[in-house]
Amino acid sequence: MDAELATATARQSQVDAVLARLFSLARKRAEPLGAAYVELWDRIEASTTGGKRFRPRMVFAAYSALGGDDFDAAAYVGAAFELLHTSLCLHDDVIDRDFTRRGAPNVAGAFRDRALAAGAEPATAEHHGVSAAVIAGDLALFNAYRLIDRSGAAGEMRARLLEVMDEALFASAAGELIDIDFTLRPAVPHVDDILSMERLKTAVYSFEGPLQAGAILAGAPDETVATLGEFGREIGIAYQLIDDVLGVFGTEEQTGKTTVGDLREGKRTVLIAYAASAPDWEGYSALFGDPALTDEGAATLRGHLVDSGARGFAEGLARYYVNRALARLVEPHIPAALRAELHPVADAVLGRVK
Amino acid sequence: MDAELATATARQSQVDAVLARLFSLARKRAEPLGAAYVELWDRIEASTTGGKRFRPRMVFAAYSALGGDDFDAAAYVGAAFELLHTSLCLHDDVIDRDFTRRGAPNVAGAFRDRALAAGAEPATAEHHGVSAAVIAGDLALFNAYRLIDRSGAAGEMRARLLEVMDEALFASAAGELIDIDFTLRPAVPHVDDILSMERLKTAVYSFEGPLQAGAILAGAPDETVATLGEFGREIGIAYQLIDDVLGVFGTEEQTGKTTVGDLREGKRTVLIAYAASAPDWEGYSALFGDPALTDEGAATLRGHLVDSGARGFAEGLARYYVNRALARLVEPHIPAALRAELHPVADAVLGRVK
Repeated sequence: MDAELATATARQSQVDAVLARLFSLARKRAEPLGAAYVELWDRIEASTTGGKRFRPRMVFAAYSALGGDDFDAAAYVGAAFELLHTSLCLHDDVIDRDFTRRGAPNVAGAFRDRALAAGAEPATAEHHGVSAAVIAGDLALFNAYRLIDRSGAAGEMRARLLEVMDEALFASAAGELIDIDFTLRPAVPHVDDILSMERLKTAVYSFEGPLQAGAILAGAPDETVATLGEFGREIGIAYQLIDDVLGVFGTEEQTGKTTVGDLREGKRTVLIAYAASAPDWEGYSALFGDPALTDEGAATLRGHLVDSGARGFAEGLARYYVNRALARLVEPHIPAALRAELHPVADAVLGRVK
Repeated sequence: MDAELATATARQSQVDAVLARLFSLARKRAEPLGAAYVELWDRIEASTTGGKRFRPRMVFAAYSALGGDDFDAAAYVGAAFELLHTSLCLHDDVIDRDFTRRGAPNVAGAFRDRALAAGAEPATAEHHGVSAAVIAGDLALFNAYRLIDRSGAAGEMRARLLEVMDEALFASAAGELIDIDFTLRPAVPHVDDILSMERLKTAVYSFEGPLQAGAILAGAPDETVATLGEFGREIGIAYQLIDDVLGVFGTEEQTGKTTVGDLREGKRTVLIAYAASAPDWEGYSALFGDPALTDEGAATLRGHLVDSGARGFAEGLARYYVNRALARLVEPHIPAALRAELHPVADAVLGRVK
């Protein structure tokens, strides 16, 4: 194992330990309140595992490169953003009516299955699952906040960390609302509107927030915090662009979900916005968002997204945003160590489509 | 206006001012993110008004009777519990598929109507409304937490206030989960199980938490905080019992909702648990939970709930819990001023059915 990987593994297990402690305590508190409640906490915990711990990695990257050395505190802040992510995913699944995540039942799916086993009708069971997911998301959200508190950060630093998390939720809620508004309109939105929605919904809480939080925790000067926010913004948009490309062209192994799903659901992405801007989209628009889309139909759509230049455009745009992100790092107030931490992040974002 | 009423009015307007400030700031932040987001914040604010500000009143009662004199801090803590209540109501409406509250569209109803106006199909519009309510509840929940922070309480006091709010959400989530589990089973649960569910779902965050928070903020000794928790627990159960009686026998003016609703939805209450324990329930059970229940059918059920002794039992049980609550207050470590504040609370709880 090389040194870099060893560090990454050590950081990840610190975050895992924080989350394991939180869930172990919650389970103990839940026990007198019934088996269902213990199962709900188990399911929330399961929702926090299997991911790439991307948000804690951003916290640690900024923190350690800026001279932070209390990795226990960084693990709490990282775990807080991970749990915020869990909470937003749980509620996003409610909004998207998804009952699986990464191929396994999510909280809604598990509680739906529980209700089915108890003899409930399918529609009742689904609503039971959704209701459990609403409750689960609330618990995760509240505890995300609590983890910031438990990091030991105090006074002004604590207040600033909370502001960053507040901004992350504020932005994500706005993005989610714009996203559900998109689905009400038959027209595919413009590329700019989709980028802005994706930035709000995901990039702020996944990149800008965690990077800024790591910098604040390390006591970095304001301009460094601000530059990291800008880097996070650009890299976060690139990440979303690649994510949307992988959602259609990736493997199920990469994305943990079927690559027909986004096309079937009619998910508004930059790929689609680009393709829909050309007149020949008319020949394909009936396939897009068709709940009965076949694998063959999906292959036809994929072909068009390549031929129309949509895939190339989205990947090119992602590269452009990565370049813009990297350009931020040459500013003189960015220490070399931070540049060294963040370059691999940029490579990793682009590397996913290689 | 007598002195007592003047105090109550002054306290309420301090809480109103805290909430108005929070929403005014949020609206300003939301403006660049789109009109829908501003409307969401407006709707969340509207959800906080029209209620009885019961939870802030509990905070103030404990706080002022225990010698607290920073009413600004108490207003923040009171507003925090009010916003927690708003958040839980918003998500409870999602779970109950309610689109109105107090006779007007709630957040889900308002966003459903907005989607309908934009041309969406009814089912799509309803889901749009529900999605907006999920997002709205998250924002309210997070900001409830933030208001505890903004109260100015620091160090150990702040940590204890957060623990109380944590416990309130933890209990409420457990109660909500037990409640949705009830609806999966055809059998009506036992009286004890319903009382325990109602205590968790509502009494902890409405009574125990706010009273304890007020006492903690006033710097009261631990045993006083504990006794207030016990008082809150008993009085909270009494409140729920009366609430369930009013849900069936009250006026729409009192409850803000139709008095056929609980019977039509098949809401599991102590009234029903009592009536269902007798063999003659069989003749009425088909009416209970019938979505097409008529006013006439509801009158028949109401008659049975009186004749079977269910109403008398529920009211008698409420009186018993109020007596138990008041018995806590005679303990020597409870100052006379606190007794004087809380006796009217107990009277008000029972007075609603007089």
